[in-house]
Amino acid sequence: MAERLIYLPLGGAGEIGMNAYVYGYGEPGRERLIVVDLGVTFGDMDSAPGIDLIMADLAWLEANRNRIDAIFITHGHEDHVGALGLLWPKLQKPVHCRRFTGALARLKLEEAGQPTDQLHIHAPRPAVVEAGPFKVQFVPVSHSIPESSALIIDTPAGRIVHTGDFKLDGTPVVGEAFDPILWHEIAHEGQGIKVLTCDSTNVFSPHPGRSEAILANPILDFVMGQKQMVVATTFASNIARLRTLAEAGVAAGRKICLLGRAMRRMITVATETGILDRFPAVIGPEEAADLPRDKVMLIVTGSQGERRAASAQLSRGRYLGVELKEGDSFLFSSRTIPGNERGVIRIMNALSEKGVDLYDADDGVYHVSGHANRPDIQAVHELLKPQIVIPMHGEHMHLREHAKLAEARGIASAIATNGTMLDLTGDAPRVVDQIDTGRLYLDGSVLIGAMDGVVRDRIRMALNGHATVSVIIDEDDNPLPDAWVELSGLPETGRAGVPLASNIESELAEFLERVDGKVVMDDDKLEDGIRKITRQVAMEEIGKKPEVTVIISRLAAE
Amino acid sequence: MAERLIYLPLGGAGEIGMNAYVYGYGEPGRERLIVVDLGVTFGDMDSAPGIDLIMADLAWLEANRNRIDAIFITHGHEDHVGALGLLWPKLQKPVHCRRFTGALARLKLEEAGQPTDQLHIHAPRPAVVEAGPFKVQFVPVSHSIPESSALIIDTPAGRIVHTGDFKLDGTPVVGEAFDPILWHEIAHEGQGIKVLTCDSTNVFSPHPGRSEAILANPILDFVMGQKQMVVATTFASNIARLRTLAEAGVAAGRKICLLGRAMRRMITVATETGILDRFPAVIGPEEAADLPRDKVMLIVTGSQGERRAASAQLSRGRYLGVELKEGDSFLFSSRTIPGNERGVIRIMNALSEKGVDLYDADDGVYHVSGHANRPDIQAVHELLKPQIVIPMHGEHMHLREHAKLAEARGIASAIATNGTMLDLTGDAPRVVDQIDTGRLYLDGSVLIGAMDGVVRDRIRMALNGHATVSVIIDEDDNPLPDAWVELSGLPETGRAGVPLASNIESELAEFLERVDGKVVMDDDKLEDGIRKITRQVAMEEIGKKPEVTVIISRLAAE
Repeated sequence: MAERLIYLPLGGAGEIGMNAYVYGYGEPGRERLIVVDLGVTFGDMDSAPGIDLIMADLAWLEANRNRIDAIFITHGHEDHVGALGLLWPKLQKPVHCRRFTGALARLKLEEAGQPTDQLHIHAPRPAVVEAGPFKVQFVPVSHSIPESSALIIDTPAGRIVHTGDFKLDGTPVVGEAFDPILWHEIAHEGQGIKVLTCDSTNVFSPHPGRSEAILANPILDFVMGQKQMVVATTFASNIARLRTLAEAGVAAGRKICLLGRAMRRMITVATETGILDRFPAVIGPEEAADLPRDKVMLIVTGSQGERRAASAQLSRGRYLGVELKEGDSFLFSSRTIPGNERGVIRIMNALSEKGVDLYDADDGVYHVSGHANRPDIQAVHELLKPQIVIPMHGEHMHLREHAKLAEARGIASAIATNGTMLDLTGDAPRVVDQIDTGRLYLDGSVLIGAMDGVVRDRIRMALNGHATVSVIIDEDDNPLPDAWVELSGLPETGRAGVPLASNIESELAEFLERVDGKVVMDDDKLEDGIRKITRQVAMEEIGKKPEVTVIISRLAAE
Repeated sequence: MAERLIYLPLGGAGEIGMNAYVYGYGEPGRERLIVVDLGVTFGDMDSAPGIDLIMADLAWLEANRNRIDAIFITHGHEDHVGALGLLWPKLQKPVHCRRFTGALARLKLEEAGQPTDQLHIHAPRPAVVEAGPFKVQFVPVSHSIPESSALIIDTPAGRIVHTGDFKLDGTPVVGEAFDPILWHEIAHEGQGIKVLTCDSTNVFSPHPGRSEAILANPILDFVMGQKQMVVATTFASNIARLRTLAEAGVAAGRKICLLGRAMRRMITVATETGILDRFPAVIGPEEAADLPRDKVMLIVTGSQGERRAASAQLSRGRYLGVELKEGDSFLFSSRTIPGNERGVIRIMNALSEKGVDLYDADDGVYHVSGHANRPDIQAVHELLKPQIVIPMHGEHMHLREHAKLAEARGIASAIATNGTMLDLTGDAPRVVDQIDTGRLYLDGSVLIGAMDGVVRDRIRMALNGHATVSVIIDEDDNPLPDAWVELSGLPETGRAGVPLASNIESELAEFLERVDGKVVMDDDKLEDGIRKITRQVAMEEIGKKPEVTVIISRLAAE
């Protein structure tokens, strides 16, 4: 059978987060495979209460493990490398990345207790990593973390450019600038570019993206203008922003204090890997607390409202000896990711109660995005002239809009969400399979399937409350009449004005007295009867039907 | 003792939603009281799973019920009148409002099974409602619902203007225009204005607010430009917007179909009360489904992503016979309220999957706000020249920013959040008491206190899962060794690879064999021991500690 080139997103297509993409080349069903990125996304109370991390279900890859040649990681953001430690044991294949990303990938593997000897660090293009039929080069792109890389994936069917997350930034402050000559060269080598798999995050942003460098002056002006303590928050991994903020602080005569483990770790890793050639000296929180308030600038984690990060801690009270006061200033040098608004607003109001003045990045003065905007995406289409554009890294509406842009330029395109396998061999993408995909949840220390019912049961208890009913059947197979009811997450009293539990217990006692002997002998039937009465009484009394656990204990005849 | 004028917010100050304000005049502790607005806010999974509505706890008012003379409702939005039916039984005092608002208030009372004979409808100023020491006039203001009213509250200590929700709109399409001459008159009667209690919602919006009327042309252009079915969503109560949308549809040669009970009801009430003098004829969903797609415009509920409203239903599939298709257009003529983003995005992506083109109001072309922006607030300060400004209707950061605006103009101000009682008798507001306030939750059919622990227990079950343990103590006070464990919302197997429930059961069996007789006799101690072991085993096995219900059944000696 003729060989073919396939693309299969398992995460990140039809959502923003938990990126995991697969490319394959070979005879249908026997293609050799490479994996690009293994990221996480985060749970929320609405859809995944109690879940720490969410990642792609790799069942299909596990079933085809012997066909996998390598894993590539484009950059060090959690949504691209965050699941490496947890998912690597399922694949156990070599992991390839560049140095800074590699240091973060190593931490992920170590934290999960996995070996690191299959982690390989590579120089960027022109270095080539060979993996089965694929020849892969890392190409520097600019993004909101250093060393983000696009991948050139050369295959017998042609060249793929997988952009990873990127923006066009000629002056990214830290890390490598966008290099149009390099990309021109990439586009014109050999047969040119067959497939561009491209970041779609900002496809709805109509204006050209702005450079990280333009923030330096406004941020300096901002810090210079403050009279008391200055606090700024941004993503810990945005090393360029951290440096811009810190240098503004120093220029304004302040000492810099970093609060938040993730942030200190990022600076360490960036320095050790040579990414960050200079960063102002920092002081500890004790020293920061002792200095005059106008001589200190805190740079802190928690820009997305995370409850345990430094921003939230500072908003609630003293943190590591530092306490914010009336007249201090707090800058969100970040955009709030949709869904995180409540957490961020909670912090803002708590800071307002302390008399802290708030500054956000809503008008774009103190923040620029790390993703290519619509005109930038169009410029890349033009620059690379691919035969096919596959939009990735976006919700369905982003992918669709991006595909429309490509098609408007006469470039073949397709919307492929998680599980859609495309054949890219011909002139246009063709859907050839639909793989069962899903999500894995890290729940405590256990990986569970999103559809296992665990989270569904939790959501139901959260919405409806929970009742436990315990019934004892004696040695002669007669139910003892006094059923015991315990309620969790339910009002104590209902319409009747008596405790709801007692009310249910009396109804159950009645039921148990008259219940048919055959029902008593049948656990399922007895349980059904008890559950039905419990829910009925609750509905009458409090207007809702709780989840019910029935425990039937049968006393053994001696 | 000298008489005094007091202000006490019980809801709506330090939050946006569930408005409930109290004014009082008289000897300290014996002031006669009036209540302004009784609104609701909505729960979310993060803070109040399973809760249908949230409203102010009126314990203080109930304790002082004999001092209350009246309840005034400024306008018909849920956050101002939504709790009237549920809370009225606690106060049982006359309710005063204007006609349209009164029709909505009547529905609230009826739905809650309350009498409506104490509902009084009034004409606007110059009509005066006397309530104890207060003389109150309703003054038309413009807002995103017809007939919104400010209150002029004349007291022996001076005139209060309570703005309610308002914007400055000279051409509000439906309802009364902002009338600067009227307000000039109000400001210059008698001693002028002592206190301005003022909407703070949009204090961070730097540009002057825009009129509802400017939307007509862009919306008409939009509808004219569409080739298939057009759907638009906005708040059901925004009668002006509904008319603008409907008239654009008619002008573009389309029939109008309203989907969503709330929307049809609003149009009916607005027509019956004479608020809406003209509205295009509407067709039913069956007829809409039968017409050519370019001859129909749907105007639908659910602009905030509500799961059961028409927008969500249409995004999921056929709804009342109507189904959206590739090439249809969907317009959000609304702003997403912070916290509702996820729901709205879910709908947008579901529509995108159907090939429906999306249009939102992010750039302001298809939506204007109903609240006064910062320059408008400043203009009102200037126009009314109050001695004191009390910011209301805002989170803490809004109140604080508003107070700063007033103070910058040399007007005395104070930030009073829920429970803070201000004495307004003197030249400047003075905090004189801090009342215990809180929230009531409507949970099914029961009102519970936010701090009753019901919701806390639900959140814990949602985060940690739930384990039920049943233990039987025999007639001789010996525990039967086979404890029974049922898990809800927890992974079935943990690290050991055996069912978690069995694992806990064996550990409990061991414990029950060796447990001291005194512990067995003491329910609390036995329960503690069982709970501890259950949580310990779960922690080792799955890395989290579930909520545990222990049921101890003691068999009676015969």
